[in-house]
Amino acid sequence: MQQNKGRVTLPSQQNFLEETKELMERWGADALRDSDGTKLDEEIKQLNAKVYTTYFVARSHNEFAEKHLEEMQQLYLMSKFNTATGNELTIAFLDGYFEEQVEADYIHDVKKWWEVIDRTTGEVVDPVKWQVDKVQNVLIITDAIPWHEYTVSFLAYMKWDPTQMYNHITNDWGDKPHEIPFDVRQPHSNQFVKNYLQKWLKGNPDTDVVRFTTFFYHFTLIFNNLGEEKFVDWFGYGASVSVAALEAFAEEKGYRLRPEDIVDQGYYNSTFRTPTKAYLDYMDFIQKFTVSEIKSLVEEVHGHDKEAMMFLGDNWIGAEPYGKYFKDTGIDAVVGSVGDGTTLRMIADIPHVKYTEGRFLPYFFPDTFYDGNDPVLEAKENWLTARRALMRKPLDRIGYGGYLSLAYKFPSFVDYVGKITNEFRSIYELIHEVKPYSGLKVAVLNAWGRLRTWQTHMVAHGKYYKQTYSYQGVLEALSGSATDVTFLSFDDVIKSGIPDDVDVLINAGDASTAFSGGECWLDETLTSTIREWVYNGGGFIGIGEPTAFHHQGRFFQLADVLGVDKELGFSLSTNKHFTETVDAHFISENITSYDFGESTDNVYALREDAEVIEYSNGSIHLSSSSYGKGRGVYMAGLPYSHENTDLLMRSLYYAANKEKQFNVWHASNPYCEVHAYPDIKKYTVVNNSAEKQVTHVYLGTGISYEVALEPCEMKWEDYANEG
Amino acid sequence: MQQNKGRVTLPSQQNFLEETKELMERWGADALRDSDGTKLDEEIKQLNAKVYTTYFVARSHNEFAEKHLEEMQQLYLMSKFNTATGNELTIAFLDGYFEEQVEADYIHDVKKWWEVIDRTTGEVVDPVKWQVDKVQNVLIITDAIPWHEYTVSFLAYMKWDPTQMYNHITNDWGDKPHEIPFDVRQPHSNQFVKNYLQKWLKGNPDTDVVRFTTFFYHFTLIFNNLGEEKFVDWFGYGASVSVAALEAFAEEKGYRLRPEDIVDQGYYNSTFRTPTKAYLDYMDFIQKFTVSEIKSLVEEVHGHDKEAMMFLGDNWIGAEPYGKYFKDTGIDAVVGSVGDGTTLRMIADIPHVKYTEGRFLPYFFPDTFYDGNDPVLEAKENWLTARRALMRKPLDRIGYGGYLSLAYKFPSFVDYVGKITNEFRSIYELIHEVKPYSGLKVAVLNAWGRLRTWQTHMVAHGKYYKQTYSYQGVLEALSGSATDVTFLSFDDVIKSGIPDDVDVLINAGDASTAFSGGECWLDETLTSTIREWVYNGGGFIGIGEPTAFHHQGRFFQLADVLGVDKELGFSLSTNKHFTETVDAHFISENITSYDFGESTDNVYALREDAEVIEYSNGSIHLSSSSYGKGRGVYMAGLPYSHENTDLLMRSLYYAANKEKQFNVWHASNPYCEVHAYPDIKKYTVVNNSAEKQVTHVYLGTGISYEVALEPCEMKWEDYANEG
Repeated sequence: MQQNKGRVTLPSQQNFLEETKELMERWGADALRDSDGTKLDEEIKQLNAKVYTTYFVARSHNEFAEKHLEEMQQLYLMSKFNTATGNELTIAFLDGYFEEQVEADYIHDVKKWWEVIDRTTGEVVDPVKWQVDKVQNVLIITDAIPWHEYTVSFLAYMKWDPTQMYNHITNDWGDKPHEIPFDVRQPHSNQFVKNYLQKWLKGNPDTDVVRFTTFFYHFTLIFNNLGEEKFVDWFGYGASVSVAALEAFAEEKGYRLRPEDIVDQGYYNSTFRTPTKAYLDYMDFIQKFTVSEIKSLVEEVHGHDKEAMMFLGDNWIGAEPYGKYFKDTGIDAVVGSVGDGTTLRMIADIPHVKYTEGRFLPYFFPDTFYDGNDPVLEAKENWLTARRALMRKPLDRIGYGGYLSLAYKFPSFVDYVGKITNEFRSIYELIHEVKPYSGLKVAVLNAWGRLRTWQTHMVAHGKYYKQTYSYQGVLEALSGSATDVTFLSFDDVIKSGIPDDVDVLINAGDASTAFSGGECWLDETLTSTIREWVYNGGGFIGIGEPTAFHHQGRFFQLADVLGVDKELGFSLSTNKHFTETVDAHFISENITSYDFGESTDNVYALREDAEVIEYSNGSIHLSSSSYGKGRGVYMAGLPYSHENTDLLMRSLYYAANKEKQFNVWHASNPYCEVHAYPDIKKYTVVNNSAEKQVTHVYLGTGISYEVALEPCEMKWEDYANEG
Repeated sequence: MQQNKGRVTLPSQQNFLEETKELMERWGADALRDSDGTKLDEEIKQLNAKVYTTYFVARSHNEFAEKHLEEMQQLYLMSKFNTATGNELTIAFLDGYFEEQVEADYIHDVKKWWEVIDRTTGEVVDPVKWQVDKVQNVLIITDAIPWHEYTVSFLAYMKWDPTQMYNHITNDWGDKPHEIPFDVRQPHSNQFVKNYLQKWLKGNPDTDVVRFTTFFYHFTLIFNNLGEEKFVDWFGYGASVSVAALEAFAEEKGYRLRPEDIVDQGYYNSTFRTPTKAYLDYMDFIQKFTVSEIKSLVEEVHGHDKEAMMFLGDNWIGAEPYGKYFKDTGIDAVVGSVGDGTTLRMIADIPHVKYTEGRFLPYFFPDTFYDGNDPVLEAKENWLTARRALMRKPLDRIGYGGYLSLAYKFPSFVDYVGKITNEFRSIYELIHEVKPYSGLKVAVLNAWGRLRTWQTHMVAHGKYYKQTYSYQGVLEALSGSATDVTFLSFDDVIKSGIPDDVDVLINAGDASTAFSGGECWLDETLTSTIREWVYNGGGFIGIGEPTAFHHQGRFFQLADVLGVDKELGFSLSTNKHFTETVDAHFISENITSYDFGESTDNVYALREDAEVIEYSNGSIHLSSSSYGKGRGVYMAGLPYSHENTDLLMRSLYYAANKEKQFNVWHASNPYCEVHAYPDIKKYTVVNNSAEKQVTHVYLGTGISYEVALEPCEMKWEDYANEG
């Protein structure tokens, strides 16, 4: 069943030929890549492997950029809040920003493109009441209202590519030049990007795959005056702004954007903000433009018989793989970093490409590969976490990044990666064209829907946030479980209803974020559609502060469906009688101890018939409720763990009224999972832990048997029709 | 210094003459009272003591009430939420209510006085679209929008006085008649109330004090269909409603109220709701009427050479002692239950009366006075808690309630009360006309201001709520500490600014409650006034979610003053750099371990110069910040404890920029306090605990000495001018 070669990409570097050959052999690699900071030797390029070459479109060409500084990329930035203590207020609007990264745009008329806002009232200050001192970089309001707070939204130039800035500062690159990002929307840049690619393609005949890292606009990453990260939004459109873009937007959409449409009170339309119409229009506008420009680059690449691969990150704004124009790019492949099951699925599920590739962890950098540390631990955890997602939808390739020479010094790591690559190939070979058994279809419902498939509750890619892990656990649990998962926006439901094949809707998030939905829940079509659907048998799971927006005596707008609401302090006078927990419940059958993460407080049952499953410290953390023929389930939070995955799966089956189908292709032990592939009559029992496990395995018939699994083991079995 | 007699009221009962005389002697009682359920014998009335007689104005006269059922008291009630599953929706609006307490008002036109609301949209349903089946007690909407939720606001009669109902059910009074409350606004009732009092006064020559328990309208107390408490609001105007009142309101105020103005989405305008103008108007209207009716009763009492005493509770609605008309009642005294320092001050601070009286705990009921229990423990705790408040503003009298015969069986309790009564008299004698030393003046700022003096965050009087104790601790700490305390409303600040003598403002509460302030914080005069005042040297302490209303990029509208804001999920992209705690801080000098109660999560510093005092689990719980010449202090919560009292006092002195005056008439040990009385050149060092304590005592000069105190001890000292 195993193959020894293929589907693996290695980084290589100069003066590392023999070792590269050895590792290629041991890991079965069939592709080699360079990185930011490493180059491949000629001999290495001639090895029997595809060659990926990193390609920067809109940076790394200072010889051009320095001649066209007026085509530098731009940003809208907001100053700090400034309180007027008299009628004159001087605002050092650049205060707190990194002068090596940004400078004010004094080329365009500040009175036209900037905006001063009285944040106490929300009103825009008439431009006749302020002026800018371009020498001191201050803005002076001459007619301020004392004790009101003011901000300045100003247009800036971004002088330094954020990724290069980050690498430069982190690795202390000293006087290495700062790479200036230029804007493909501008005439010279547009021409340069195309000409240079053409020339480059001709000059790099050994390159098989142009690894775009990435295209035009970097996600928003702003540093502070100390050169530390100040603002990071992996989805941010901050760097896509320019006077040219704003003019083109007005032309295309028929109305002008205000700076505030971008600056958004200083939140800059983070994905946690329920998007405004103006911002959605702006994203659409940028996506359309970006895709059309990518298309012409990809065509050029194809014209040279090479493949175009996109790195999912860095300058990926406007090129979102789940965006509605993405298929038009013609991109062959997407590669991204795999931190867990969720990020694996985010890459593996991408439509319209020939293949996907995941860069696994650990990255071959000295922070992991140092004397005394065992990189196998991180590799094993990464592999176990990702593998369960791989069983649902495999990547087409895997790979690593960093300095290969570092990894080479750790023989046990080299061994372990050999096992991973073999296991990956064996899995892939069996299932890459086979649909796995799914007992349910789940739709994750939020303001973004499909565009942010497997990307909810993300701030900076791969970074932990106290405010998000209790929701990210939902996606992580789903990423490797026997469910089909889809992402629906509120607009989808309003316009098209709930797809017929969906069994359960999940709405998870903090109140008023885009993931919970905030004011969207005032739309009567949205609530009515869901009520009717649940009433007729659907399942609705709310996590955290689902459907929350205080209106007409309710905080959870679907409190009737969930059977619970959250006390905000207004209804303390109403006794909360229904606090008794049920003796036993399908959902909690397997749980040994609850973990709701950051959890949600002050949730209470509305009705006697609500089934309170967990109640502590005066609050319900887990409950279910009937609603017509359907069911609602409430959870206070769901950080990722094997037990919580079990809890979520049980909640899904319960919400869907399908408890009887729960023990089908199922492992009783939460540390194990069963994945079945009916088309090839095979199933596997997987131990997702690094310890031995014993589990009951339920076949498709519901018949079960017990099996013991070694740490990390997966056991493949064939089954006959009765399986 | 001690007096052996006076200022103490005892309950007595039938056939208890000799024991009553003995206890009067031992406790120095000079007044005797009956209770709900006990009567005094003739002989007892002839003892050398004032006689208080409980008097019910608007209940306890079924012989009248049954003849005028149309004058029963009324309520506006809201049905449950009902989801329409088709075009017809039948709502059993009485569902969940106690049929022995309420019945629908079918006398008045339901189409005029009831309101059906589509809670999905908030719109009122046209009365032509519904009808009421008065036999089945259901309302049928014939043109409902499927999947919308509907409620019915209906006018009901209240057939049973809530206090009697509570006592009846709790004590299982069986077939004892249900006392029907009648409405003094109605013609027959009004006449009856006056005639009966006249007659009664003539018939009760031995009564010295008419103890009104209470007047006309009970605070809102609604039971559910199982005869359990369903809704309780000690401040609720629910039972003051009637068709007559609504008509008179329209006449007086020039506009009509809607049922929704009273029902308020089912929140019934609890004190946690920021009051609407309509509700404030309604309260004003009821207060004015209530006071004028009380006035005529009090005049009648005075005409018979008796005193009128008001019980603070039960049917006290409209007679709020801190209300603007209260002084016109002519009431001689107010008596109320003392549960802690806060409730003591709530009574003791009442203006415009000749004297105040506190009924101490424990109540002489079998729940405390049973074999094997030691009632001294509760008495001691109650006394220690209340005593510190007494040192600031003494009650004029204290007393007890319940069955004296029960207390008599516990000799150690009888002894202990003897000590309390002597200690009370000795304190009173020394300080009742003397202003204690206060280092600071504090104003508690919320939507209610003076009207709810010492009454913030109260739901049902004396009941614990998880959502309130972390704020009630603020008042409890203040009630016995060396500060002057005043209560300001937002309107006070908007109209008149901040009084000159205030050193520190405190705003404490959960977001959007009346105590935090919600939308009130969008008033630019409010924020500007406070900013200017702090900037020029004032102190502002925010606790929990102070000044919170999400608007223009800020949740705490005075985030600039506090130096912190709360993360709602919208600004996760912005790094929170300022998490390092200061090495030492005046505020935390004495603290051994923090207790923020329910606490507040996700609070972060806005500025580098914010002083983070406590930071844990990713959130600031205590911090301070400079703002011009003034200071802001943030606390995540402040449940009552001796350590937290110290923490609050330090915060007040710090916020006021008066740290140097902190060690003046001060005890270093948080379990002790110093109260000084400059006018009489005396001070006392008090041990507020039931353990021995040693403390440094700082005199008025700042000079200190060490002293040891026995459990509960207070040591009085004289001081010369240098003190």
